[in-house]
Amino acid sequence: MNPWYLEKGRQLDEEQRAQATQRQVTLTKPPGSLGRLESIAVRLAAMQGRSAPSADRVEIAVFAGDHGVANEGVSAFPQVVTTEMVKNFVRGGAAISVLARQLDAGLTVINAGTVSGQKFDPPVIDRPVGKGAGNIVIEPAMSRRQCLAALQLGKDITAGFGQDTAIVIGGDMGIANTTSASALAVAYGVADARTLVGPGTGLDVHGIQHKLTIVERAVARVSGDDDAFRLLAELGGFEIAALAGYFIHAAQRGMAILVDGFIASTAALAACKINPSVREWMLFAHTSAEPGHEFILRALAADPLLSLGMRLGEGSGSAVAVCLLRSACALHNEMATFAEAQVSDRE
Amino acid sequence: MNPWYLEKGRQLDEEQRAQATQRQVTLTKPPGSLGRLESIAVRLAAMQGRSAPSADRVEIAVFAGDHGVANEGVSAFPQVVTTEMVKNFVRGGAAISVLARQLDAGLTVINAGTVSGQKFDPPVIDRPVGKGAGNIVIEPAMSRRQCLAALQLGKDITAGFGQDTAIVIGGDMGIANTTSASALAVAYGVADARTLVGPGTGLDVHGIQHKLTIVERAVARVSGDDDAFRLLAELGGFEIAALAGYFIHAAQRGMAILVDGFIASTAALAACKINPSVREWMLFAHTSAEPGHEFILRALAADPLLSLGMRLGEGSGSAVAVCLLRSACALHNEMATFAEAQVSDRE
Repeated sequence: MNPWYLEKGRQLDEEQRAQATQRQVTLTKPPGSLGRLESIAVRLAAMQGRSAPSADRVEIAVFAGDHGVANEGVSAFPQVVTTEMVKNFVRGGAAISVLARQLDAGLTVINAGTVSGQKFDPPVIDRPVGKGAGNIVIEPAMSRRQCLAALQLGKDITAGFGQDTAIVIGGDMGIANTTSASALAVAYGVADARTLVGPGTGLDVHGIQHKLTIVERAVARVSGDDDAFRLLAELGGFEIAALAGYFIHAAQRGMAILVDGFIASTAALAACKINPSVREWMLFAHTSAEPGHEFILRALAADPLLSLGMRLGEGSGSAVAVCLLRSACALHNEMATFAEAQVSDRE
Repeated sequence: MNPWYLEKGRQLDEEQRAQATQRQVTLTKPPGSLGRLESIAVRLAAMQGRSAPSADRVEIAVFAGDHGVANEGVSAFPQVVTTEMVKNFVRGGAAISVLARQLDAGLTVINAGTVSGQKFDPPVIDRPVGKGAGNIVIEPAMSRRQCLAALQLGKDITAGFGQDTAIVIGGDMGIANTTSASALAVAYGVADARTLVGPGTGLDVHGIQHKLTIVERAVARVSGDDDAFRLLAELGGFEIAALAGYFIHAAQRGMAILVDGFIASTAALAACKINPSVREWMLFAHTSAEPGHEFILRALAADPLLSLGMRLGEGSGSAVAVCLLRSACALHNEMATFAEAQVSDRE
């Protein structure tokens, strides 16, 4: 029997897709003139299996985890920030906290394993997979068992969402996680390390050069391995694997996934490498300012909605993009047809 | 004494700009990581002269006018659609009606002059400048007096907005108005007609070729003239001139303008050619799918927020972009600082 994470995502509703496509042509506008807002509405109708697609009910989960590779000096910020930001998320002061309130979205914050081993009180979901992931230059980020636990953690979060959840967003927090994500993307064949490694939270040119060396060493350590699950365990991190499990189960439950930036997209890539049926459930929110992101997006054949130079993580880019989905749905559901409005169609 | 439309836009508040710039660096995120959402918040703070910028109160005005050049067969839709869509706007079935509801924005619909000469009942503001603009191939779109009346019409609409208006959006409706706007942009030196003329609401390649000939003839008629006001009168239209007046007075009142697509940007260009101080009050919502739009944007040194392949007009692209301004303001106003959240800053 297959493990749960290999089970296929739900089938999209092709009849609703066809009906929604047909409806778009009858609305009082030149056909195609709403651009991507039209195709988004059609896709959401197919995903949700209903004629009136919705992006009202949004669930955001932010997974936090530490990375042993932070010891190599690859981040502009100290490692304690992972823990401090978890508290900031639930106290309402972080970017994603502000955006979740603005959207009236659910916000779940998960401790997937910080290096301090500190316990977190509710509302943080305290499910550490370990005391930070291993230093990928010298050891696997996770054991097979830890990677399974992290995937399961992500699944459990999605499993807790109400059936009326329209949009699922996954965010990350983890000092040094662009290093892990870059290494994983290189190992998945997205591009070489030189192309994928960037400034993260704000490295200067020397910092980037050093980070590149670290990523190259980590990737060399697993050279020859091409198993998607094993590479995730070797080079990922608790929050990255949890995000992959979270996305996979969202597709299995038939919930639209709005993928965020560099880290979330790498987790999305891992999810699709492990279980290609998940791809169909993904919409992409934005192109990050982190230069390697565009290559990860290309590997996913993704065409994101926004390009605002954001590079924060936390699911913030996805949260900002939700309003575009809401506009697409409102237009699809509420515009009058040519017949209803007695407006003349093309000659 | 200068006519009203040459009076300068309000000065931005440089002290608030400096304070907002400083605040952005103290918020719990890597500096710059919110990308353009940071610069938008800073700019709105400078425009609004307050430390907590807002995009809550939005006013949308859609100006409708007919174009004599429609008789040359330059549009995929019959001319009666201008009038029919005015009714659709106020009945709530058009794209801009749906988006205005979603934003809880004010929506003012203005008849600036349709070819039928039909009277419109409230809530339409019935202020026809004439029975449709002239056919620009053979005659001026407007007399000097009509152009002044159209500018004044736009001013009167802005003048009616409450002082707490945060964002002003101008939309257009007018069958054949991409022909007039293209001609005006060519005459303003944006690019040659071959570059600027596109499919509008959906011309095929033969239709575009014919439209190009029409635009070239219209532009040739005013060859040698380089007066911004006179060219607007010669080649614009009632709704285009009204939009220009609307934008100019918004800048004079100190209200941020969120410029829409091809027609609104051409009106914005006319406004800036007539009164360059207006430019500072403009934010640009999106790049239209109409191919010439990017050249008009370039002439305005504009870098729009969205690129979703929209090409509807009505102010719809601006309405879709409002939520980005709202997110920018919420993040600026509500995020915790490093000190407040006790999060460690860079090492």
